[in-house]
Amino acid sequence: MSERSARTGYAVNPLNRVANLRDHTEDFARWQASPSAKMIVLVGENVLLKRGASGIEAYFAFSEADVFEGREEIVFLGLDGDTPVFGGAYPAGIAERLASNDHYTVSDARTLALEGLLPAETLGPLAEAKALLHWHRRHRFCAACGGETNVSSAGWKRICSACGAEHFPRTDPVVIMMAVKGERCVLGRQARFAPGMYSCLAGFVEPGETIEDAVRREIFEEAGIRTGQVRYLASQPWPFPSSLMIGALAEARDETLNVDTEELEDARWFSRDEVKSMLEGSHPDGLTAPKPFAIAHAIMRAWAIDGELP
Amino acid sequence: MSERSARTGYAVNPLNRVANLRDHTEDFARWQASPSAKMIVLVGENVLLKRGASGIEAYFAFSEADVFEGREEIVFLGLDGDTPVFGGAYPAGIAERLASNDHYTVSDARTLALEGLLPAETLGPLAEAKALLHWHRRHRFCAACGGETNVSSAGWKRICSACGAEHFPRTDPVVIMMAVKGERCVLGRQARFAPGMYSCLAGFVEPGETIEDAVRREIFEEAGIRTGQVRYLASQPWPFPSSLMIGALAEARDETLNVDTEELEDARWFSRDEVKSMLEGSHPDGLTAPKPFAIAHAIMRAWAIDGELP
Repeated sequence: MSERSARTGYAVNPLNRVANLRDHTEDFARWQASPSAKMIVLVGENVLLKRGASGIEAYFAFSEADVFEGREEIVFLGLDGDTPVFGGAYPAGIAERLASNDHYTVSDARTLALEGLLPAETLGPLAEAKALLHWHRRHRFCAACGGETNVSSAGWKRICSACGAEHFPRTDPVVIMMAVKGERCVLGRQARFAPGMYSCLAGFVEPGETIEDAVRREIFEEAGIRTGQVRYLASQPWPFPSSLMIGALAEARDETLNVDTEELEDARWFSRDEVKSMLEGSHPDGLTAPKPFAIAHAIMRAWAIDGELP
Repeated sequence: MSERSARTGYAVNPLNRVANLRDHTEDFARWQASPSAKMIVLVGENVLLKRGASGIEAYFAFSEADVFEGREEIVFLGLDGDTPVFGGAYPAGIAERLASNDHYTVSDARTLALEGLLPAETLGPLAEAKALLHWHRRHRFCAACGGETNVSSAGWKRICSACGAEHFPRTDPVVIMMAVKGERCVLGRQARFAPGMYSCLAGFVEPGETIEDAVRREIFEEAGIRTGQVRYLASQPWPFPSSLMIGALAEARDETLNVDTEELEDARWFSRDEVKSMLEGSHPDGLTAPKPFAIAHAIMRAWAIDGELP
């Protein structure tokens, strides 16, 4: 697909999830026993990688992963053609034990996408594994009654051993957007950003609101700008830990910013030419934009270069 | 706003959520003590309503709500002008106790929207209250450690008394869509639907996928139709219990359906004229569409009447 969403990081996922087979325990067992089965290995929040002649590789054969002890969870991600693909969660301590072993390296999922160290079609399954395994680690107990939960449905459900409640993986919708007016747009920066980097504003969609209302609310809360028309542009899975980024443009009705300094270090208007130069890395003051793996880059490009409007 | 999202049920919400003030406990106390404060009252999963001369009313003064005992939770929804608006969760048993009292009636949130029994601008806050209070009821314990959690941030957070983990309200993104090809579209029906009603297909967005991929996956899983281009149309808060409906059209590449009969009782192709007649209630075989409060209605209308394309 050439759509805008598919050009963001973590968005390309070739796996057939065969969701209708997740409750077939005999298939789950057969897939795990398949000699071709492969696994993405998470060590705590990080990713374990093999070093090969042609670079690093994220998929381990089961025989390779069996070397590591203490697997905490295994989830079925889907079929890559006929090949069953899994995600496995292992203790974070394995990363330290393997630090001096030249066959392995450990990275975080963000760096792998930022630096293009893995093929795009591996980053999608990696995001799927990371979000799902994080959810398992944080849902060992039932939020309804406090009982212990057990994994079910090939890793896509947890069931409470005490009250029987069923729990499903969580995905948090987040709006990320630019307010624009004519040839100008609003960008902001958080204190934790790299020096000189400005990006889109963002925030969680809340219970009882539409995507469009969430966009307008967040822009007003963070920058004090009222906005009107909102247009959806693209979405991105963002496994930190389990967001769905929903990208949009919004038509600004105000000029004067009122920045929420608890959320943002700064926010200001930028011209279209400035945004173009930030995307290209040629801004006269050295200001920068997020890299292409981030949906913020796609949103800035859509407006500044592709000419999209709210 | 005249946007498509705002024309769905539960989507109009005039409240200013003042999210930056939720941690100001003195404001929360002051708002509760305000003589003008008003509350939407949930009794279990249902809504308690007052009967008045001009119909039913969803907002109770605090002095009116104090008559009921055993309030389980109170959450701050936002400011309506200067008026603080809350949601209160009370025991389901209150509904039975008041069944013979002419001053009150009890309804479910779906019926209130379907039958237009409340103003549109009350349905938004009602959806906000319902989703948020449901989340509290199902999150008395910490999913990470099993400890008891306590409410915080005016009802927008729970904190574990044992491990200190912070938990935030959950919103589940759901894609809802039609596959279309030329003058035809795919609709399906679940066994639980009213006889003769057909609607859009739908399913939860999963970890590690874009909105567009979720749309294509769900259509393929449920109807066996491969699709290409996907276009976002509208979104809707859907508090059953806490979904964000994301509506789209998708370009069908196949003609032959392969229906998942575990999910659907039937799915088939419909002509544009058939869909128009279903929306208008004039289908020759008596087939019907969801009512205007449902985003499925907006999606069907967007394609069949407004001429939108994927």
